[in-house]
Amino acid sequence: MKHNGKIEVMSKVRIDTADGLSVYYTPGVAYVSEAIKQDIEKAYDYTSKSNTIAIVTDGTRILGLGDIGPEAGLPVMEGKALLFKRFGGVDAVPICLSTKDEDEIVSIVKAIAPTFGGINIEDIKSPKSIRIANRLATDIDIPVFHDDRQGTAVAALAALINALKVVGKSRGAKVVINGAGAAGIGIAELIHHYGIRNLVVLDTEGAIYKGRNENMNEFKEHLSEITNKKLEKGTLSELVKGADVLIGVSEKGAFTTDMIKSMGEKPIVFALANPFPEITYDEAKKAGAAIIATGSSECPNQVNNVIAFPGIMRGMLDARIKRINNDMLVSAALSIAKSTGKIDAEHILPCISDKSFDTRIAPAVAGKVAAAATRTGEARINVTEEHVKRRAKELIRRYEKVERLALRYPYPESREMLL
Amino acid sequence: MKHNGKIEVMSKVRIDTADGLSVYYTPGVAYVSEAIKQDIEKAYDYTSKSNTIAIVTDGTRILGLGDIGPEAGLPVMEGKALLFKRFGGVDAVPICLSTKDEDEIVSIVKAIAPTFGGINIEDIKSPKSIRIANRLATDIDIPVFHDDRQGTAVAALAALINALKVVGKSRGAKVVINGAGAAGIGIAELIHHYGIRNLVVLDTEGAIYKGRNENMNEFKEHLSEITNKKLEKGTLSELVKGADVLIGVSEKGAFTTDMIKSMGEKPIVFALANPFPEITYDEAKKAGAAIIATGSSECPNQVNNVIAFPGIMRGMLDARIKRINNDMLVSAALSIAKSTGKIDAEHILPCISDKSFDTRIAPAVAGKVAAAATRTGEARINVTEEHVKRRAKELIRRYEKVERLALRYPYPESREMLL
Repeated sequence: MKHNGKIEVMSKVRIDTADGLSVYYTPGVAYVSEAIKQDIEKAYDYTSKSNTIAIVTDGTRILGLGDIGPEAGLPVMEGKALLFKRFGGVDAVPICLSTKDEDEIVSIVKAIAPTFGGINIEDIKSPKSIRIANRLATDIDIPVFHDDRQGTAVAALAALINALKVVGKSRGAKVVINGAGAAGIGIAELIHHYGIRNLVVLDTEGAIYKGRNENMNEFKEHLSEITNKKLEKGTLSELVKGADVLIGVSEKGAFTTDMIKSMGEKPIVFALANPFPEITYDEAKKAGAAIIATGSSECPNQVNNVIAFPGIMRGMLDARIKRINNDMLVSAALSIAKSTGKIDAEHILPCISDKSFDTRIAPAVAGKVAAAATRTGEARINVTEEHVKRRAKELIRRYEKVERLALRYPYPESREMLL
Repeated sequence: MKHNGKIEVMSKVRIDTADGLSVYYTPGVAYVSEAIKQDIEKAYDYTSKSNTIAIVTDGTRILGLGDIGPEAGLPVMEGKALLFKRFGGVDAVPICLSTKDEDEIVSIVKAIAPTFGGINIEDIKSPKSIRIANRLATDIDIPVFHDDRQGTAVAALAALINALKVVGKSRGAKVVINGAGAAGIGIAELIHHYGIRNLVVLDTEGAIYKGRNENMNEFKEHLSEITNKKLEKGTLSELVKGADVLIGVSEKGAFTTDMIKSMGEKPIVFALANPFPEITYDEAKKAGAAIIATGSSECPNQVNNVIAFPGIMRGMLDARIKRINNDMLVSAALSIAKSTGKIDAEHILPCISDKSFDTRIAPAVAGKVAAAATRTGEARINVTEEHVKRRAKELIRRYEKVERLALRYPYPESREMLL
């Protein structure tokens, strides 16, 4: 509050002298502009585009607060920008929009795209958010990352990979997902891409199956194609019986102890609703869950997107990719799972408070994402995993030092100006 | 080039620990968001809105390079962002648009406005740029500054005030302006507001007068109302005879030595075309000009917008103004004129290379602009000139120190990542 927000713009160069001005501004800058005019791709070399993304929201689904408007969404976007920088070395600029119109949001993001190396769609109501991200992905040639869907999916898949390993189960496990918003859809699609086939997704109407007519949309239709091959119908209590994994991206109270008791052996329960999980860690434990993960930092196994999005965006920027694909996201999840180190029931994910978190997780993820981008033909430049990983570490370490130095001089308060 | 651009995003707070995260991101940020939802004006207190502006261009008139596109415009916008920060403590974010459509640009800027405390319209072709700025000024409740018009006008008026003083002339002087693009229109309107009434503006068709039909637009129509009361017609050579002041915002070669020789006593010549003036400093001198100003840093009396825009924006942000008016701009010009110190024919403006330039000029301008905003009812909060001035100094000094520290750790090059 006293700093009037959390982010500021800094120079990477010194323009203190008339010489500096003439190199970095007129007339020197004209040469750089001319070079980019000749070859537009040079913008990645000569401008901040290569490292800058826009965090775009319309304020319709800010945290658990709902539709609170673009201004009220701004502090959250600033917080997100801090995380992008601190944990991924990514420069992120909040863009909070005063329109909620899907077409208008799409055309605005298209229009501002030349400035940025990537777009992060944030806290826009689902399924509009998914439609916007998908439309943009085909309309513009920079990655459009939808953290609520793709970031959550990567973190959840990473957790699932390690959880299955801990309980000694395979991709053949039966997984039930409760919730078919952006997160539920994202998780279902990604774990399907990973190879899990025994999968059912439920929304407020119950199980989603091919042929269901109530409360569908194009994304649920797609889920009905790739999940629930047995066309199971019914409520969560019915569907969860015998399941190996129960993933909630729904709301507080959605899971009961009876549900967990009815699951198969060594049940895995991810209760990811925020800020209050579908069932508390302790209740799930008492009901017999072998592994429990929540969104809370106060319990073991926090599923936090910050494990995923900084490294993913870092890798996408460094490979200068055009479009995200599931191979990149699965690579990211595998990398997170592997980077966790020694795993057990209370350690299925890297922990943000680990000392080496910042220089270990995101760089590893970035390297894998960039490699997957190159492999799948979405990279504009050929970079090696090793180089991306090393530079990510450098960027993060450098920023940590710079921030520490800069904060020696706190931002002057504005309140004292007031009469 | 080696840094991939010139600007980056920095944190004003430390979020290194889990505690930091929970205060500045979830769950802590929810309280801030709720507070802004209750009272939207709180965004100025709690977010970076209060100090952040967008530099908006469509790439159609980048420097002297013309319509080179948004990507090629980006390095120039980054340079501008550096100047805003270094000389005004203002955080500026480039927004380079892939559309040239006036209506679309207006609606995009309207949509992104909640994020920003001000907008700087930059290097958009005139007169579209003026129409966009004017439409936005009535559509949104943050200042829309058009530097090519208003910044240039303030710098030129400051120079004119001091030049008239040096040669011992008054507001009754006859002023001829050659060029009726954004800069010419801006200068004419502002010096008219300042009180100069013996004023003629010319474009490529010759003098603009009431009733002229060729090559007019709404802004030239307005000029024909407030200038050239004697309805003078003709070419520059004809109109400049006996004039006291000749201001060029046109193109190289537009002024001849004969024109200057035909002017009144102690002629004042501002040849502001960039990068090549209408006549060189030396030629104008030889032709008898008493005071010459150009856009070049290599001659005395450089008319450079950096004298004006950082301080103006600083003052507008600190008073949280809704709309710019000419009183603020004249106040800015008077402040610059006064801050120049001891004036003579070769020192009519503050010089950027003066040691105290950064902590003296912009803070003085900011204070005056904020005071004018309060006086004219455009300020959201009541601030005193003295407080704004003092905080501007603080912001600029702090940033200078922070930048110096940060540059100890240069930005890692990206080139080495390449295969």
